[in-house]
Amino acid sequence: TLVETIKDYVEKQNNQSLKGKKVIVSAAGTREPIDPVRYISNRSSGKMGYAIATEAASRGAEVVLVSGITNIKAPENVKLIKVESAREMQKYIEEHFADCDITIMSAAVSDYRVKEVASQKIKKSDEVMTIELVKNPDILKGLGEKKSDKQYLVGFAAETQNVEEYAKGKLQRKNLDMIVANDVSQAGAGFNVDTNIAKIITRDGEIKQAPLMQKAELAKLILDTIEEKMNK
Amino acid sequence: TLVETIKDYVEKQNNQSLKGKKVIVSAAGTREPIDPVRYISNRSSGKMGYAIATEAASRGAEVVLVSGITNIKAPENVKLIKVESAREMQKYIEEHFADCDITIMSAAVSDYRVKEVASQKIKKSDEVMTIELVKNPDILKGLGEKKSDKQYLVGFAAETQNVEEYAKGKLQRKNLDMIVANDVSQAGAGFNVDTNIAKIITRDGEIKQAPLMQKAELAKLILDTIEEKMNK
Repeated sequence: TLVETIKDYVEKQNNQSLKGKKVIVSAAGTREPIDPVRYISNRSSGKMGYAIATEAASRGAEVVLVSGITNIKAPENVKLIKVESAREMQKYIEEHFADCDITIMSAAVSDYRVKEVASQKIKKSDEVMTIELVKNPDILKGLGEKKSDKQYLVGFAAETQNVEEYAKGKLQRKNLDMIVANDVSQAGAGFNVDTNIAKIITRDGEIKQAPLMQKAELAKLILDTIEEKMNK
Repeated sequence: TLVETIKDYVEKQNNQSLKGKKVIVSAAGTREPIDPVRYISNRSSGKMGYAIATEAASRGAEVVLVSGITNIKAPENVKLIKVESAREMQKYIEEHFADCDITIMSAAVSDYRVKEVASQKIKKSDEVMTIELVKNPDILKGLGEKKSDKQYLVGFAAETQNVEEYAKGKLQRKNLDMIVANDVSQAGAGFNVDTNIAKIITRDGEIKQAPLMQKAELAKLILDTIEEKMNK
């Protein structure tokens, strides 16, 4: 209704709670080439990260969105940097990290890349084939090591089993302030759907269980929680 | 202009040159899972195949479009079957092949699949990792072996070098009636662009060099050539 539209508009104008803050959001999946035609990737759609970038921008933050592969339209008032591989993503995130207040790493970064990328399309020949992979840099861990006390760092854990346990371990191991954990094997959670079911776990041990909700709503809840914890 | 719109409409109504024909089109890239999150795929966007399906339907054909992964909207008047892996694609194409007049295989089918797909997300641990692949069935070759003299079979060759030579070999080897060859390393050709630069090579040895053109235009040229050759 018109009344709701106006109410939303006024609320948005008023809630400039991230004004003056610089926020980096990484989103979507990266791609690691095998040859000029083939690649390894993952099912991340980018919807969660784009929703967070949109919400942070609407709260007045200066947002840098470093995005892997997705067809989602660029959000308004966001600096969008499109990348393909994990190492490209790392380069742009690290370029912006030093003066950044909040970093939210929702991208599904490829853990491994192909050891030797072929410069021409590989012809199929043998009945079997092996692809040798080497580990990519752990971008999130690197940020956790270098972040200052004033910088707030958020990771994501998309798992198919032991979600909470694994997420808590990752928060510790990578020196995060918050981790958003979801079980991507559940219907309505995870990849390429508009909803999510997540646990927001913070460094102080608090766990917020978010019910099935729109990713746009979850983005608000994540940013509300970050603001609440940073202002403590 | 309105005049052009009406002209186009009348032309479309008149050109029912594929009325009574059943056409299978395969389009887009297939995906081969590594685990529930990661997969191997390729850069095919599906634009060429969708353009062919659209054009064939507008000429009155009964069109079955067996499509891998793409965000393109389903064309009108086409039976769309969405699949993920090469083996799924094979299943649906073979289901429809027996009573089909024209089969146009523009999909970029994964040559290999992962030997053992993990049922849970693989945790990264080692510095290096190898993925073992096994060959997928060669769908096009299988169709070439079983096709009757009345069935017209078209393949595509997306190459980065020795395009024409390789395409001619593929036409022979797989018993095709036509192959559409393009050099995907050229600007304006190949993956995820709206244009293409292709060679249409037919069994009789004729080669049509199509200049840079919209994929919708190339679709018309391909179907014109098929109709011309079938009516000889």
